[in-house]
Amino acid sequence: MNFYVLTLFTQMIDECMSYSIMGRAQKEGLISIKTVDIRDFSNDKHRHVDDYPYGGGAGMVMKPQPVYDAYKSLNVEKARVVYMTPQGKPFNQEIAKELSKEENIVIICGHYEGIDERVIEEIVTDEISMGDFVLTGGELAAMAVIDAVARLKPGVLGKEESFMDESFSDGLLEYPQYTRPPEFMGRKVPPILLSGDHAKVNKWRHEQSIIRTYNKRPDILESIKLSKKDSDFLKSYIIENSTDTNIE
Amino acid sequence: MNFYVLTLFTQMIDECMSYSIMGRAQKEGLISIKTVDIRDFSNDKHRHVDDYPYGGGAGMVMKPQPVYDAYKSLNVEKARVVYMTPQGKPFNQEIAKELSKEENIVIICGHYEGIDERVIEEIVTDEISMGDFVLTGGELAAMAVIDAVARLKPGVLGKEESFMDESFSDGLLEYPQYTRPPEFMGRKVPPILLSGDHAKVNKWRHEQSIIRTYNKRPDILESIKLSKKDSDFLKSYIIENSTDTNIE
Repeated sequence: MNFYVLTLFTQMIDECMSYSIMGRAQKEGLISIKTVDIRDFSNDKHRHVDDYPYGGGAGMVMKPQPVYDAYKSLNVEKARVVYMTPQGKPFNQEIAKELSKEENIVIICGHYEGIDERVIEEIVTDEISMGDFVLTGGELAAMAVIDAVARLKPGVLGKEESFMDESFSDGLLEYPQYTRPPEFMGRKVPPILLSGDHAKVNKWRHEQSIIRTYNKRPDILESIKLSKKDSDFLKSYIIENSTDTNIE
Repeated sequence: MNFYVLTLFTQMIDECMSYSIMGRAQKEGLISIKTVDIRDFSNDKHRHVDDYPYGGGAGMVMKPQPVYDAYKSLNVEKARVVYMTPQGKPFNQEIAKELSKEENIVIICGHYEGIDERVIEEIVTDEISMGDFVLTGGELAAMAVIDAVARLKPGVLGKEESFMDESFSDGLLEYPQYTRPPEFMGRKVPPILLSGDHAKVNKWRHEQSIIRTYNKRPDILESIKLSKKDSDFLKSYIIENSTDTNIE
């Protein structure tokens, strides 16, 4: 799986992706991350890559030609070409799974007031947003996409890391986790987790996932279908807690 | 504005935040980003910070004590303490604005299967999610929060960068941007942008924002209220394009 990142800050990405799981995955040859400096493709003696926007207004716009030439220099065929932008589709685990099936993924990082629309129309296949907030550039968002996608590739995660997918596997939030000691700052581990009764533990965890999702992300419950049993459990939980001022 | 990041990968954050606008803002003393290695607070001779989850299951859980002690070592009073987790509130520009009013922001980055719930209950004030996807650790998410928050501080953005807030200022997506040359790969800049008529340019841009939001993020239109004029414009756009197979 090859990632190509077109950016004005190649070193930032090279360094940041050299740590932890992404660093190991590159060393082991499971993924490659190649960064290309858009500025190297400026055909301006001052190496400018931006210019004033047509129609006026503050801010600068990245010129189409250096981005296009940087892309062409990759010489990749059949690549997904992702542009990180707040105007894109909000990134989620579904998109990560879909992208993890690709061999070549090109990611374009914008800066300033964005990139000339025509080069986006010309080469970009996917506009992706990290969420409804504004970053100073596309680099952090690009690395988040690389991380979320690469970790789905078999072998990238070690055994001790391989479980986190649970977060969104059934659409619900994850249950709370506890490890030693059994008591910390006067707070005890829920006794059921020490019971050794796996069926009960699983039931408790599943119910905690439902309660958490209800309390923290009710919007998720609108988009997934709970089983009759789960739905009954949630109803009784809501009734039990309806007189409390502090739910959960 | 002081950011404190509790992490297992201090260097990753130190390096990555030394570039571009975040690097400059630190050099100019507008923000400070201090990273603390949670591993330094392990009281285990092997410097372990994780352990098996109570109740079984794959994955490791970060122990409460090193995280707590790392936090205590900061000696900050009245700080917002943010834990980056897929179980949190989805990060957005509203949260960024709210956090930008704080003097001290502590951000905790999890790894493995998450952090023991009890230390979250004990010290965390805000659980924040980057979105509905899974990362190998909280570092990239933490840096996105720092970037989105810090850039709102006056002086952090230079003149040429100061415009991007537009993206979400009226709730709509940004209009397309163009810069020189007037023709690129056979694609021309929309003539209205070359007209010099500012009122017309502004009207066109505003309408493009409405069309883009309708085509790319119809969910946003459900949560904001368009003026009568904008709403009429959108209705006529929809009618005009209703027989096309390719909208926009």
